[in-house]
Amino acid sequence: MSKPYSFHKLVILGLGLMGGSLAAGLRQRGEVEEVVAWGRRESSLKRGMELGFLDGYTLDLADAVSAADMVVIATPTMIAEDVLGQLQGLLTPDMVLTDVASVKGNLLRRARQVWGTEPANLVLAHPIAGSEESGVEAARADLFEGHRVIITPTEATDPAAVSVVADMWRAVGADVEQMDVERHDRVLAATSHLPHVLAYSLVNLLAEQDAKQDIFRFAAGGFRDFTRIASSDPKMWHDISLANGSALVRLIDEFSERLVGLRAAIEARDSEQILDLYSSAKAARDRFGEMLKDRSDDAKEQD
Amino acid sequence: MSKPYSFHKLVILGLGLMGGSLAAGLRQRGEVEEVVAWGRRESSLKRGMELGFLDGYTLDLADAVSAADMVVIATPTMIAEDVLGQLQGLLTPDMVLTDVASVKGNLLRRARQVWGTEPANLVLAHPIAGSEESGVEAARADLFEGHRVIITPTEATDPAAVSVVADMWRAVGADVEQMDVERHDRVLAATSHLPHVLAYSLVNLLAEQDAKQDIFRFAAGGFRDFTRIASSDPKMWHDISLANGSALVRLIDEFSERLVGLRAAIEARDSEQILDLYSSAKAARDRFGEMLKDRSDDAKEQD
Repeated sequence: MSKPYSFHKLVILGLGLMGGSLAAGLRQRGEVEEVVAWGRRESSLKRGMELGFLDGYTLDLADAVSAADMVVIATPTMIAEDVLGQLQGLLTPDMVLTDVASVKGNLLRRARQVWGTEPANLVLAHPIAGSEESGVEAARADLFEGHRVIITPTEATDPAAVSVVADMWRAVGADVEQMDVERHDRVLAATSHLPHVLAYSLVNLLAEQDAKQDIFRFAAGGFRDFTRIASSDPKMWHDISLANGSALVRLIDEFSERLVGLRAAIEARDSEQILDLYSSAKAARDRFGEMLKDRSDDAKEQD
Repeated sequence: MSKPYSFHKLVILGLGLMGGSLAAGLRQRGEVEEVVAWGRRESSLKRGMELGFLDGYTLDLADAVSAADMVVIATPTMIAEDVLGQLQGLLTPDMVLTDVASVKGNLLRRARQVWGTEPANLVLAHPIAGSEESGVEAARADLFEGHRVIITPTEATDPAAVSVVADMWRAVGADVEQMDVERHDRVLAATSHLPHVLAYSLVNLLAEQDAKQDIFRFAAGGFRDFTRIASSDPKMWHDISLANGSALVRLIDEFSERLVGLRAAIEARDSEQILDLYSSAKAARDRFGEMLKDRSDDAKEQD
């Protein structure tokens, strides 16, 4: 039997860019009756009140969660693991618990530790949206419009709980997709986490070259685009790198193998192989570019 | 004694984006008396006439070069090496020979082979400008405005010849800098050639993942920026990779070392080291971003 879940009474745990934007988007559209936030820093919560995102806030987690329909963990990734632990004993079967973190496997493992099994009303989700800025100050009601949200239910998840989480994200304009946890983490490692690792490594390499001064003076537009993601929040990417460590390490190894192959082709002056590799990459990137044209995701998405 | 060099009679060898834009820019500003182009494909030369870039063209190299003040090799990189060979016996001491290629060391070595020494009137140069398009059709008079041109003279180069090449580039709005050949090739390997190698390798890796379909569907804005350069012309980057092979291979090795270090930190869950690496990269990239704000180079620069 499906349970009568809803998101009328929404509780945001951790009020930053993501939680603030979700609250703002739902309120602006009149899709929610009451939004309460919990967090460790009262300043962010107060600011959320001033910005009109909230009906109230509390520093007491039990107080926040009581009487909630929907609890959204919107803290940084590593703190989300702690929050799951703190929620033990606080959830009731009529609530839905969800989140917005960039990695899902670590939270699923943590939930299994905390509850001994996966609660049927736990629905892990990842809105693929963000901004170069962070914090509640950067939140905006349209952050998720036209962006994808990946929901990663397991066999234990109540379909009715999945459905209400999907409804909530559609209410703020997102396109909702489903994927299993392992695939989600592998796909995101490939398209987002590995590129960040490469960009951070490249910028560090260049910053320490002896020609440092010249290197930065003569870098052109391609370099700017390529390294933009190295300006992303180090703490957030530290968290993601640890949370998705095993998928990321596996992909770094696969990437390294390819780089070694290309290096060998360059050293051997193997014209045909170099041209093949570059041509196939261009063809794939051009196809991807065509796909992107059909999407409304803006250029500021980060994770 | 300095010689009375000029660029009144300009000969472009190979009429594509770069040569066409140089001709167009100089003519539009009335800085040149006569522009003649030589090439292998008459269609490009005819199109250059139609677009108003040229006073004439020829398929005969000796004919093109005779009576020139300034000869600009503007062919693709690998062909530029051949053209140097074909110019043996055609240059007179009152001409200046220059080029627009992205790598300088290979051309310097080739010139030493051809002439036994470096001609004093050979001035290698690299305008750091480009476009995602190529060919004479994409040429425009303002391509070099506000962009850097790196001139790479050696001890054998006549300062008067360097000076007239610098004047020519300033006449089309470029900022002229000097650098030695080896440093130029190392700096460009770091800021441009290595990023292309990484982007091509990453896109190939992703295109062959089993989750291919999902990977491209869920890639976000960061990935789009990061891989944009993988859409660059494979032949051009093949040429550059071979022409600058030794600097590039050395940098691939240095990059790989760093990647291995970061991989180990992730596997060991060494929080402090990961955070240090990401934080230092962000700091360097943010400084670089500030530098870029002061520049007028547009986002389409490629090489």
